[in-house]
Amino acid sequence: MTGINVDNGIGIVTTKYAKFDVELRLESGRLLGPLTLAYETYGELNQDGSNVILVAHAWTGDAHAAGRHSEEDRRPGWWDNMIGPGKVLDTDRYCVICSNTIGSCKGSTGPTSINPSTNRPYRLTFPVLMVRDMVRAQKLLLDHLGVKSIVSIVGGSMGAMQAIEWAIHYPEMVRSIVPIAGTGRTSPMAISLNALARQAIFNDPLWKKGNYQLEHPPADGLALARAVGHISFLSDKSMQLKFERRFSIRDGMFDFFGKFEIERYLDYNGSNFVNLFDTNSFLYLAKALDLYDVAWDFDSLSEALDRVACPSLWFAFTSDWLYPPEQTEELVTELQRLDKTVDYHLIDSDYGHDSFLVEPDKYIPLLKEFLAQIDP
Amino acid sequence: MTGINVDNGIGIVTTKYAKFDVELRLESGRLLGPLTLAYETYGELNQDGSNVILVAHAWTGDAHAAGRHSEEDRRPGWWDNMIGPGKVLDTDRYCVICSNTIGSCKGSTGPTSINPSTNRPYRLTFPVLMVRDMVRAQKLLLDHLGVKSIVSIVGGSMGAMQAIEWAIHYPEMVRSIVPIAGTGRTSPMAISLNALARQAIFNDPLWKKGNYQLEHPPADGLALARAVGHISFLSDKSMQLKFERRFSIRDGMFDFFGKFEIERYLDYNGSNFVNLFDTNSFLYLAKALDLYDVAWDFDSLSEALDRVACPSLWFAFTSDWLYPPEQTEELVTELQRLDKTVDYHLIDSDYGHDSFLVEPDKYIPLLKEFLAQIDP
Repeated sequence: MTGINVDNGIGIVTTKYAKFDVELRLESGRLLGPLTLAYETYGELNQDGSNVILVAHAWTGDAHAAGRHSEEDRRPGWWDNMIGPGKVLDTDRYCVICSNTIGSCKGSTGPTSINPSTNRPYRLTFPVLMVRDMVRAQKLLLDHLGVKSIVSIVGGSMGAMQAIEWAIHYPEMVRSIVPIAGTGRTSPMAISLNALARQAIFNDPLWKKGNYQLEHPPADGLALARAVGHISFLSDKSMQLKFERRFSIRDGMFDFFGKFEIERYLDYNGSNFVNLFDTNSFLYLAKALDLYDVAWDFDSLSEALDRVACPSLWFAFTSDWLYPPEQTEELVTELQRLDKTVDYHLIDSDYGHDSFLVEPDKYIPLLKEFLAQIDP
Repeated sequence: MTGINVDNGIGIVTTKYAKFDVELRLESGRLLGPLTLAYETYGELNQDGSNVILVAHAWTGDAHAAGRHSEEDRRPGWWDNMIGPGKVLDTDRYCVICSNTIGSCKGSTGPTSINPSTNRPYRLTFPVLMVRDMVRAQKLLLDHLGVKSIVSIVGGSMGAMQAIEWAIHYPEMVRSIVPIAGTGRTSPMAISLNALARQAIFNDPLWKKGNYQLEHPPADGLALARAVGHISFLSDKSMQLKFERRFSIRDGMFDFFGKFEIERYLDYNGSNFVNLFDTNSFLYLAKALDLYDVAWDFDSLSEALDRVACPSLWFAFTSDWLYPPEQTEELVTELQRLDKTVDYHLIDSDYGHDSFLVEPDKYIPLLKEFLAQIDP
């Protein structure tokens, strides 16, 4: 990381790539390796490797959580408002690390990577992953960087799942976790929405069972799949606030192909997404989300959560219908029953699942207070 | 209607077809005609044509609301538990009429009908309809049958919309309405779900801008579109109750194409639907749902509802997230403000929008009491 400051932020950053000549045994029993992990770091690691905050990204996120990639870069990283000098994830104090998960297409090993045994891209020969596998790969990276103890793991949505898995599977290394807008296991409703997304892609003749040319992805299918996601990230109220029932001014109300503004929004974002994300990666990560169950391979939820040794801070959002607050509350209640140190806040927000990205100011003060207790 | 009784019900019934040599002026300004309306009647019309209950069907419904079409017919009409001798819509007392809406494919004029000006099926030359147009066509049928006064118009979902439109546009003819699981205007959330369904069909190469062969419909697209609908008719809770997170026993959990039971259910119902409904009709009715706004072409909601002259009974369901209770409550509140006779019940049910079909016993007693007051 170079030190040029832009916007009082952390300045220009570079994505780095760590390669591991390993064969990682996955939950499925299959082996995956060698592995590459894309990551970025913000702030300096202290001598005993104990000042790390690990930021875990959501479904279509990447390692670029903060700063800019060049002077001309107009968009900072996806959690830039959280990470930087003096910010809640304070880079004057912490070494913040964000790594792209395996299975993604943003620099870490995934379905677009070359399968060393065939010298061709994995595509659908890539193994089905669980979130637990992503965390296992992150552990390799943190060991490699000399991290001995993690102040906190903070993440929303799929990032929350990673935080929980870390606390359960590496309790000796984790001093706290902050799962935001998460769930302990995806509900059949969430699975059914991913099923729509999947089927939208499978229906696209360009998909070719995953053997599409990267220059000719199944754009219609992926755009529709992304639209499903967008709907689940929003809420009735946030759509009302943003679009009401306005009809596109470009269309006539009685045109068969005329569209409401909400439809144009979904189209626009869906089509843009095609240039930003690989279709097979999208499918593998959707599958990992669907398979997510904190109790998987344990006898019970209680047995899984009893492994958590650190304090945890949980945020859920009133209008989140993808991972509704009750799902976080189930975990919080069980942790309390197990006499763990746990703090939970239900944040009043109209922005659905996206609230954690749209209204961070509603939970940043609570997060700041929590971190001050963990690392006084 | 023949009088053979089966199952203490109304016995064997026949769908009838009324033809109208008219040109109906639609809300869009376009003309539609001649018109055919498919309908069924249960019970006898009294001499002064005043004992009619009109049952209005939902999106993919039809005129066959009760009874069986033959001795061998294993499935009775879609609201058979409501209609018959001694039932809440008592055919010993009332003449119950159900007509298929225009735009549908179940016998009334719709996109599969022959356009008389070209002698070929309308397909996408069919005009965009509003619910108000459906009601206008029903009015022709009721006049034709000699109906002078309607005891009540009862319907769920799109049927509720029709009931409301009847009360507003033919106040002199309607003695009561019972809108169930309805809305005064579809929300952007509901529109966005229909947008997914539409796009799923548009993406199917077999759709051919509506010019598919009827024997080769865009099956993949329509099945996916129907799956979107199914999800919106269910609820998080009803999916939990029925499917939990069970993985299909036919699949391995780590198979890329492995499915959860909820996915198999959506697949199965989506694929079945392809044999039951025409794709273009599905699209035209989705459009009518999206365009639905009780205040359309009025200065305000208040101006529209002020035309209602009859008592109304409203039911909404706690777990209905497609047309949530608040949307019914907005109408009820406005009717109360206007000093109309209005009764509203929020029914506690876990079955989402489908509650009105799944748990009728929760509102039948209230409906019975209401009808006894209207027609003592």
